[in-house]
Amino acid sequence: MAITAAVLGLGNIGRCVLRAIERVPDVTCVGVVRRQTSIGKTPYDLRGVPDFPSFDDLCEHVEKPDVVIMGLPSRLSPGAAAELLTRGFCTVDSFDIHERIVEVVGSLENKAEKGHAVAVTAAGWDPGTDSIQRALFEAMTPVGTTFTNFGRGRSMGHSTAVRSIAGVADATAITIPLGGGRHSRHVFVVLEPGYTLEQVEAAIKNDPYFAHDPLQVTAVKDSAALEMVADASHGVMMERIGASGSAANQQLRFEMRIDNPALTAQILVASARAAVRLRNLEQYGCYTLIDIPPIMLLPGDRMELLGRLV
Amino acid sequence: MAITAAVLGLGNIGRCVLRAIERVPDVTCVGVVRRQTSIGKTPYDLRGVPDFPSFDDLCEHVEKPDVVIMGLPSRLSPGAAAELLTRGFCTVDSFDIHERIVEVVGSLENKAEKGHAVAVTAAGWDPGTDSIQRALFEAMTPVGTTFTNFGRGRSMGHSTAVRSIAGVADATAITIPLGGGRHSRHVFVVLEPGYTLEQVEAAIKNDPYFAHDPLQVTAVKDSAALEMVADASHGVMMERIGASGSAANQQLRFEMRIDNPALTAQILVASARAAVRLRNLEQYGCYTLIDIPPIMLLPGDRMELLGRLV
Repeated sequence: MAITAAVLGLGNIGRCVLRAIERVPDVTCVGVVRRQTSIGKTPYDLRGVPDFPSFDDLCEHVEKPDVVIMGLPSRLSPGAAAELLTRGFCTVDSFDIHERIVEVVGSLENKAEKGHAVAVTAAGWDPGTDSIQRALFEAMTPVGTTFTNFGRGRSMGHSTAVRSIAGVADATAITIPLGGGRHSRHVFVVLEPGYTLEQVEAAIKNDPYFAHDPLQVTAVKDSAALEMVADASHGVMMERIGASGSAANQQLRFEMRIDNPALTAQILVASARAAVRLRNLEQYGCYTLIDIPPIMLLPGDRMELLGRLV
Repeated sequence: MAITAAVLGLGNIGRCVLRAIERVPDVTCVGVVRRQTSIGKTPYDLRGVPDFPSFDDLCEHVEKPDVVIMGLPSRLSPGAAAELLTRGFCTVDSFDIHERIVEVVGSLENKAEKGHAVAVTAAGWDPGTDSIQRALFEAMTPVGTTFTNFGRGRSMGHSTAVRSIAGVADATAITIPLGGGRHSRHVFVVLEPGYTLEQVEAAIKNDPYFAHDPLQVTAVKDSAALEMVADASHGVMMERIGASGSAANQQLRFEMRIDNPALTAQILVASARAAVRLRNLEQYGCYTLIDIPPIMLLPGDRMELLGRLV
């Protein structure tokens, strides 16, 4: 099966999606959509793939893709997906605002059914593959408690939240696990002229993203200094102790240490494969990773995969 | 959704299946099939569920079940499932002979389609939930190596293999992980009169189950002494180091320490739920756990599960 994909956006995720596609046997990228002002720039990021200032422009010049992989910020992603689904294109995104996922699934489901297409949403590692772990843990031990401990690593969501605070020119937020699914936050900021660290720290503490966790704020002199603070390393440790039937003390644990955008991009590519397969089976709708048979994430023949993996 | 199940066999697995069913909200057990000579015995294992000497006898006396959960030895399981599927009953088993799974899936698929039923096979923890981990690990890091390290714990398959060797009255085989997916075996045997430990050890070393692993054999005086050697504790540690796109050093690890038959039984019950759901969707056929959307393993409403787990 040859799957054609387009990529919307050429930020951290979009660049990693191109590198992931280069290494899988069954997906090719027909083009990238990026800002008009960036067209033709950073050819090493494009890796030979043509870039276009709009999706319509892409469709005029190259083969229409089976699936569009979103490299947009989460808040822009559902709107862009809705429009593409209505036009009959499959979409895949790593939308990560947990409390809005049910709403987004409902809205994209409707659009996907209308367009005879498939959307896969929340398809990163959390939400995403971690969600599969939470579902499995609960199927294996229905009574118990799961803790998801993030980090140590840079949180994209928390960093973005700080950057929108008055007096902050630039920021990076590090998530540090405290155990039991609790976290502390260490935020590094570049201050705007005229603001003090104390003012900015108080504003961060008031933000709902930070209100419930221990917080430390450190000022650095510029964005270059900020870049020295944290690379793309991240990780998670998920643990559950629970009971299977009447047997207590069942202990489950999943742990990973990873390059964050590279893993997200790889999961997006695997999900793009599943989206096109589900569309080919006419199972139109919006899926999260726990709605998809895991075998659909992998290239190759079913019986060969069963023989090797089961 | 109220699911009715019957259980074939009341060994280790069958007993744990009854205890698991007691604690889930959506499955009830209509009856157990066991040897004629056992009918009415060990009422504490039956937990109030009626027992019958054959499945036909069960169907005459109680409501016909949606699904039959197999508590039979692996080698008897596919034959029994094939007959039930042809008659339109869904089946779930924890068949664990890895090298025969592809053959069993092919054969049960055919029977399930004919009977408009669903079979879930190889639905324990390995094969089973570990298979899901192997599939996920590979989707997240397509290039890399996964090691599955079993134990320390009693291996049912290896114990059964030893019991069939001439001169062995009873046996228990313990699996000890050596790292890198390799294992050593410590076998405890009760000798038949007239056989020496050296004779039996040589025969075990010749068995294909043991030929490739370091082996230690210890004689104990009787089955009671054997029972003191190992309880139902088991575990696994799965690890993969690989690359997502061009990012190397992605480190994934899943580890659990569990009561072995209790976990297997709980996964069988979750799979019974999925089997009936797939049958209700008219998606007849034979599934392994990697062919099933993880959300189908859990009771309750999809949107409620998405809100809580994704």
